[in-house]
Amino acid sequence: MRKVAIVGAGQSRYGEFPDKSIKELFFEAYRDMASSVDRNFDPKRIGAAYVGNLGCGGFQLGNLSALVSEFVGLPYIHTMRIENACASGGYALATAAMDVMAGVHDVVLAGGVEKMTDVSGSKGKYWLGVSGDTEYERLAGTTFSGLYALLAQRHMHEFGTKREHLSMVAVKNHKNGALNPKAQFQRETTLEKAMAAPMVAAPLNLFDCCSTTDGASAVLVCSAEAAKSFTDTPIWIEGFGTSSDYLAIHDRAETVALEGTRRAADRAYKMASKGPQDIELAEVHDCFTIAELLAYEDLGFCKKGEAGRYIEEGHPEIGGDRPVNASGGLKAKGHPIGSTGTGQAYEMFHQLRGSVEKPGRQVKDAEVGLLHNVGGSGGTVAVTILGR
Amino acid sequence: MRKVAIVGAGQSRYGEFPDKSIKELFFEAYRDMASSVDRNFDPKRIGAAYVGNLGCGGFQLGNLSALVSEFVGLPYIHTMRIENACASGGYALATAAMDVMAGVHDVVLAGGVEKMTDVSGSKGKYWLGVSGDTEYERLAGTTFSGLYALLAQRHMHEFGTKREHLSMVAVKNHKNGALNPKAQFQRETTLEKAMAAPMVAAPLNLFDCCSTTDGASAVLVCSAEAAKSFTDTPIWIEGFGTSSDYLAIHDRAETVALEGTRRAADRAYKMASKGPQDIELAEVHDCFTIAELLAYEDLGFCKKGEAGRYIEEGHPEIGGDRPVNASGGLKAKGHPIGSTGTGQAYEMFHQLRGSVEKPGRQVKDAEVGLLHNVGGSGGTVAVTILGR
Repeated sequence: MRKVAIVGAGQSRYGEFPDKSIKELFFEAYRDMASSVDRNFDPKRIGAAYVGNLGCGGFQLGNLSALVSEFVGLPYIHTMRIENACASGGYALATAAMDVMAGVHDVVLAGGVEKMTDVSGSKGKYWLGVSGDTEYERLAGTTFSGLYALLAQRHMHEFGTKREHLSMVAVKNHKNGALNPKAQFQRETTLEKAMAAPMVAAPLNLFDCCSTTDGASAVLVCSAEAAKSFTDTPIWIEGFGTSSDYLAIHDRAETVALEGTRRAADRAYKMASKGPQDIELAEVHDCFTIAELLAYEDLGFCKKGEAGRYIEEGHPEIGGDRPVNASGGLKAKGHPIGSTGTGQAYEMFHQLRGSVEKPGRQVKDAEVGLLHNVGGSGGTVAVTILGR
Repeated sequence: MRKVAIVGAGQSRYGEFPDKSIKELFFEAYRDMASSVDRNFDPKRIGAAYVGNLGCGGFQLGNLSALVSEFVGLPYIHTMRIENACASGGYALATAAMDVMAGVHDVVLAGGVEKMTDVSGSKGKYWLGVSGDTEYERLAGTTFSGLYALLAQRHMHEFGTKREHLSMVAVKNHKNGALNPKAQFQRETTLEKAMAAPMVAAPLNLFDCCSTTDGASAVLVCSAEAAKSFTDTPIWIEGFGTSSDYLAIHDRAETVALEGTRRAADRAYKMASKGPQDIELAEVHDCFTIAELLAYEDLGFCKKGEAGRYIEEGHPEIGGDRPVNASGGLKAKGHPIGSTGTGQAYEMFHQLRGSVEKPGRQVKDAEVGLLHNVGGSGGTVAVTILGR
């Protein structure tokens, strides 16, 4: 099996950008990626581009991967849009790795882009609603925060997880986001403020929910041979795994875990010949604060039901023994759907190389990190393990 | 590089099905695929499913690949929706091949599905319009038939291609479709009728345009080792190639060819160590009759500008020296967008194995066939070469 490296990673600012098109956002990420490559970057070497995207700018643009590829100067390549709801970017990264492993191309782009605000003709809220089971959940009136609220209610009921535990996730991620110049929300919050925010879907309040975001990201993926020409310090894709699950929550065997995360993680750990004990830091999919707590457990960072205590004890803080969402996560960094997975890879690339923009966010000397990207309420999950 | 086989292929009826959901259409194709496998078919062996789709049933369903996968009994797998407009299915097939080549999974599904009619909330015509360059073409008022009409006008101007040549494509494909029990239009037409049909976008009339269609298809792709357990007569993926192009026609170097087809074909021929002279039959992307004429030339079946004479001389007829669209093509078999690419693979699988449903359509003793699947007006193109 061919080894696969990441040799460059870029990201646009995340936020609301009424003045930028979806193509311009992707270009911003692409240019940032290009400038991160140590040497010999040449667009002509890129044979393929895998682009994660859910909404195509209000469902206005088809053939999107070809469109953004030509816009950044990559016509005539193998390019493909991948849509797995909020996990589109994670799957784009896995597909890029498979391509290089198969030996079809030596140098490929994995990226994602989403334009969620200021889109004419957009169906707005439908964007996220479509990622669950439309016929049984959305059309019955369930919102996305409503679905995660059900998971939170059950977790609190079974394990005594507290309202405070949810808010601790928000406080931690806002603290990290305040140190990220590309984050949507670069400001801290307090436990009191997070606890007192207006209710969205009980028990989830405004500070338990990520926002809607415009943004893009892109990473350069290549074979070990090609990596030598680009850099002396590649980041390796040690393993990846994905899993789908029943979309409707009522079809699942249990509601206090995401089975997709468990299976995707098992597969990624197996491919990497690693386990949770080897993971020094992680970017996990905190679309809602409960989702980060579930991730601690389903990725094996702590036992089922112990996520509340895990964050209480400070393990996932920067400075803790396994920082989670040093970037600010979806909560503070932002969640431009299709971009989130490769945006996590952008963060981890720089974390593992020690090249994070602001020193306060840099985790010291980490060698192995994990990315966790969830589509919908767990219908699709991609886990990737990176190492240096 | 691992050899990749197709060991099963299924397709739903193509047509208008107000009583069938997108999930049910996919199941129909999946079940047909399963029953085509000679032995040892077991859903548990399927590790991944790549599903081509453009419109998600009126943009109502995200995470579609996970949704249709669980519906056919495949939860917890690696599954991914691929959207490259009308070429989505062809790219799903290429991705399935890469997966097996990479050694990530041994047995994978490549399929596609589209529900284009009787969809509540559908944007209707927008579905196809989004596949060109929305900002420069669609929003300026250009329809999809309008774009292909421009290509047809130029071809007629430069090479003397005649109105009759366009209609000959329609007549041939309807003749073949009449022999296909799964085709949308199972009736012949005459040159006179085809020439006299109401104008859509000059010179393209109603019989020069494919219709909107509901339908699905699925093929079972696996490694050579796995193939042995399924059948004694696998069909091999000898090569595949894809290429993107500038979406807007005004950005292209020429308008009498699809550069994407040329490059995709070059790559597929190279991987297969074959050339146009080796292709004994083909399924090409005749979304409009001019598109089939362009395909003859751009795939190297005849020289640039000679497509009119090529069909006049009968080469692409069943009984000719290289039958094209024995299935009826997009024109008569139908064009359920995301399904078209793997629907072509379904036809070719049975053609090469000599197992076509009705004998009149069966091409005798062919060993090598080509599939050609175009996204939009050529923004993405996938070419696949199959052999027995």
